[in-house]
Amino acid sequence: MPRYNAPVEDMKFLMHDYLNLQQYSTLPCFQEATPDMIDAILEEAAKLTENVFFPLNQSGDQEGCSWDDGVVTTPKGFREAYAQYVEGGWQGLTGTPEYGGQGMPQILGLALSEMMVASNWGFAMYSGLTKGATESILHWGSDEQKATYLPKMMTGEWSATMNLTEPHCGTDLGMLRTKAEPQADGTYKISGTKIFISAGEHDLTENIIHLVLARVVGAPEGTKGISLFIVPKVMVNEDGSLGEQNGVSCGSIEHKMGIHSNATCVLNYDGATGYLIGEENKGMRAMFTMMNEARLGVGLQGLAIAEVSQQNAVDYAKDRIQGRSLTGPKNPEGKADPIIVHPDVRRMLMTNRAFIEGARAYAMWTGVQLDMAIHHPDEKVREQAEDMLALMTPVIKSYMTDQGVEAASRALQCYGGHGYIQEWGMEQYLRDSRIAPIYEGTNGVQAMDLVGRKLPAKGGEPVKAYFAMIHSFIEENKGNAELEKYLAPLEKALGRQQAATMWLMQNGMANPDNAGASAHYYLNLMALVTMGYFWADMAKKAQEMLAAGEGNEAFLKNKIVTADFFFTHMLPETAALRAKVEAGAEPVMALDAEAF
Amino acid sequence: MPRYNAPVEDMKFLMHDYLNLQQYSTLPCFQEATPDMIDAILEEAAKLTENVFFPLNQSGDQEGCSWDDGVVTTPKGFREAYAQYVEGGWQGLTGTPEYGGQGMPQILGLALSEMMVASNWGFAMYSGLTKGATESILHWGSDEQKATYLPKMMTGEWSATMNLTEPHCGTDLGMLRTKAEPQADGTYKISGTKIFISAGEHDLTENIIHLVLARVVGAPEGTKGISLFIVPKVMVNEDGSLGEQNGVSCGSIEHKMGIHSNATCVLNYDGATGYLIGEENKGMRAMFTMMNEARLGVGLQGLAIAEVSQQNAVDYAKDRIQGRSLTGPKNPEGKADPIIVHPDVRRMLMTNRAFIEGARAYAMWTGVQLDMAIHHPDEKVREQAEDMLALMTPVIKSYMTDQGVEAASRALQCYGGHGYIQEWGMEQYLRDSRIAPIYEGTNGVQAMDLVGRKLPAKGGEPVKAYFAMIHSFIEENKGNAELEKYLAPLEKALGRQQAATMWLMQNGMANPDNAGASAHYYLNLMALVTMGYFWADMAKKAQEMLAAGEGNEAFLKNKIVTADFFFTHMLPETAALRAKVEAGAEPVMALDAEAF
Repeated sequence: MPRYNAPVEDMKFLMHDYLNLQQYSTLPCFQEATPDMIDAILEEAAKLTENVFFPLNQSGDQEGCSWDDGVVTTPKGFREAYAQYVEGGWQGLTGTPEYGGQGMPQILGLALSEMMVASNWGFAMYSGLTKGATESILHWGSDEQKATYLPKMMTGEWSATMNLTEPHCGTDLGMLRTKAEPQADGTYKISGTKIFISAGEHDLTENIIHLVLARVVGAPEGTKGISLFIVPKVMVNEDGSLGEQNGVSCGSIEHKMGIHSNATCVLNYDGATGYLIGEENKGMRAMFTMMNEARLGVGLQGLAIAEVSQQNAVDYAKDRIQGRSLTGPKNPEGKADPIIVHPDVRRMLMTNRAFIEGARAYAMWTGVQLDMAIHHPDEKVREQAEDMLALMTPVIKSYMTDQGVEAASRALQCYGGHGYIQEWGMEQYLRDSRIAPIYEGTNGVQAMDLVGRKLPAKGGEPVKAYFAMIHSFIEENKGNAELEKYLAPLEKALGRQQAATMWLMQNGMANPDNAGASAHYYLNLMALVTMGYFWADMAKKAQEMLAAGEGNEAFLKNKIVTADFFFTHMLPETAALRAKVEAGAEPVMALDAEAF
Repeated sequence: MPRYNAPVEDMKFLMHDYLNLQQYSTLPCFQEATPDMIDAILEEAAKLTENVFFPLNQSGDQEGCSWDDGVVTTPKGFREAYAQYVEGGWQGLTGTPEYGGQGMPQILGLALSEMMVASNWGFAMYSGLTKGATESILHWGSDEQKATYLPKMMTGEWSATMNLTEPHCGTDLGMLRTKAEPQADGTYKISGTKIFISAGEHDLTENIIHLVLARVVGAPEGTKGISLFIVPKVMVNEDGSLGEQNGVSCGSIEHKMGIHSNATCVLNYDGATGYLIGEENKGMRAMFTMMNEARLGVGLQGLAIAEVSQQNAVDYAKDRIQGRSLTGPKNPEGKADPIIVHPDVRRMLMTNRAFIEGARAYAMWTGVQLDMAIHHPDEKVREQAEDMLALMTPVIKSYMTDQGVEAASRALQCYGGHGYIQEWGMEQYLRDSRIAPIYEGTNGVQAMDLVGRKLPAKGGEPVKAYFAMIHSFIEENKGNAELEKYLAPLEKALGRQQAATMWLMQNGMANPDNAGASAHYYLNLMALVTMGYFWADMAKKAQEMLAAGEGNEAFLKNKIVTADFFFTHMLPETAALRAKVEAGAEPVMALDAEAF
């Protein structure tokens, strides 16, 4: 049986030491978020996820959800666990106090998300989209809509979904057919079929608020004719009580590779009552508020699954004895050494570790950008933070989910044959992890978003700001002898990314397929450079703290070793990635489609 | 529902054109293997695997095996399919005519294996170890043992297993505890528990011949005290008829991530009668005959799963319409273009294609080496072939199985959300594929076998011969303008491998952990260089045939395009791999085990 312990120490290091959240204490969301409060929240979240959600993870996978004539039953224990989540007020942790939220910083929301997914991915998904839907309604909805839906969504008493995909259209939303017919009372009748709706139907909440993309009758074709609607599962009366069932039903649930405990639904809308959010034909804009939030969240899922997989792989590698160390017995009294002495097992564990801790720094830093974008008094700072988020979102989503799969796979490999056997739990992590590179925009879509949209945005200002951030870091620290081993390779890697960017600008214009063929490599190149930046910066902080005699010495020294590993064993991939970017589209596109 | 069509055209190109098997027609195994005979066998194998085995693949996965009080029932249809396999004489295709085999070249056996695994991995595993066991008995067994077991194993009427792993020992066989007590009649009583025994119990054959590693009472500790035994499930009477049940029983079957239709068994030996193969305490040597065979077979499984995944991903990518080509509509009458127009989808399909066709050339060439090693009249040639096989076996096992997982994962990704849903079949391929990097020696073990055993073997002669083979190819073709685009990067990549080899020799001696930490990277570097050699050589053959107006023009041109892709988009990884090799063990091993 696997175990999970929330990585609270690492989170505290990032929040208090590395990111020094105290510096933002004048921002509204940080006023109550004192270090003590942050620690208390992290520790309570750890307890909840370790003791309540995690024990239901394997049983939830094995039992799965069941569907009976439109009614979906979640696995044993999920209702009680969800009730505890609601009771603890966790859903509203970072929500606006105006509608009952606790107004805590976004970074705490990210930490909670990581713990929830690591402890029980399928369970976490029942509440996973409620926050994004809340943001959408908050941002684009009418006051009445806000008053009707937000308070119950903020508590988690109602959950929410995101309805984009239809059988014939996923990525290409321009083809969507779900129809919205305007009614005399200002509502719309929604009809059509949506598929792959996560948590589209379940027994955890008394209502489910579906956010649905549909086309108003007579609207333009393509994405310009798409509107966003609130379609509650159960109608809400004027006094806030629940009324009749709305015209939406769950036609079936999917049998999937993983996340068995979450119901992935076909939802049939049959003249369901819908309420327009914002303006007609401006649905994509409003949906993107939710989608960007969701994409960051999915990136975090990659980190989360890597963390829990790694914890168990480490336990196994310390416990399982097999063979002797190449440099002489390390457990001479035993019949063999624990397999953690073997360099190839170490290689896998260190690769995971360097990914996990680097990605967590990356994600938590993004959390700060989220708060800056919302709360900073200076409009310019808000805009810069928003631009940085826009640039980083596809990188985080794609890189972290791909690496989440790889990390889960490496962790499984550490177990040898036992990794392939259900009862050990590792194969579930790999199965669960494999959805993340697909949903909320496949990783190919993320790469195109980065290269086709985010790089050229605002005349390239955001990417220039990104380069400047890393470049300044290198320049500012050049005298620091202890950092030299990081700065030189980081500068080289940054140079590769800049060259690749130049190549894309020159060749992507001439032939857009060059951008398309290189996008995946470019995104990963950018991710590695960014990770390199965070690793060098964290190593710097660790060195400073060690010099000052602050913090946990062993913890800080381990950060430095892990940074060393990242720079010597992972960052070198940037060489190959640059070459692949610059290899261009020709051999990728040369074959006739029929030749495949 | 997925489909499978055996890649007969590519196999024919490799056998007739690229490898020109006709040149070996003086060797015994090739005398009857005329081109027409080869084609007929490939076509019959294609029919059997496509029409009989493949239709049971998804149902076999969903139904799985069942265990009831020691009796294992295979999924519906497996008994009938296996009967057809036996009736067609497929088990003995490459077996020695002395015991009823057909004496065909090994390369045909590899082609058959690829088709069997691609069509139905779980089913293929029921007969997958019989050939290796046959070879072991043939090589090390007594005449009586050969006469008793080989004829029925050659027909497939009896299957066989390989019993190494015990609960506390997998890689480290020195710890094995299964006990063999000598009896007055020359037999032994075998007692102990073996786990992870593929096809250890099933209802397809009337007998199962277990090859079991055990320790004779009083034998030395470690691997020097291990002997190999034949333990039939059902005792064989002197007249060849079946007698009593032997003292071996199936305690349970595992619930696994994939290959559900194959029974992975716990086998309990309770004083079972065993017959020593060869000498006492020389069991490892005899088992390695079987294991090397098995490792090549497992490498092929990676290729096979990549092939079937790719076929379906290609179909989906041509059929699914979504979005428009970046260079303008390619399907202007339709609402969208097929997704194969998108460069990132192409990138995935081309990567798979270049892996598959390169790996098939690599594997088929290995098949020729197998025949050379057995049949060539010149002892020196036999030895060279054996050395090359020994060097290549870990590379093929590790590289092809890792890439098999990656290829199945990329194919799944092409499907978007549908790839994650059971009914489309792609998630089964990914689940099935994930066992291959683990069994028959984890890929970490393969890497250590390469670096620690195969490189230094015979004073480095085999690896020098390998370098010379690629180096001569480059030198011999340097005037060829059409090959220049391959030769220059191949030479560079080879230079990287040679430098990495030198680094290993210098640093692996000083600190064996350097060899251990670099082994995985080194193996993959060697695999890519070898793939580069086969791709350049195949492109050369294709160019020659095109110039001579021979063969299928479109097929040959596609080979050249795919070679271009390999050299520009895949071979560049050698740069990163060299850097990782030379990064050494320090940051890998620096953390205290307790710090994890």
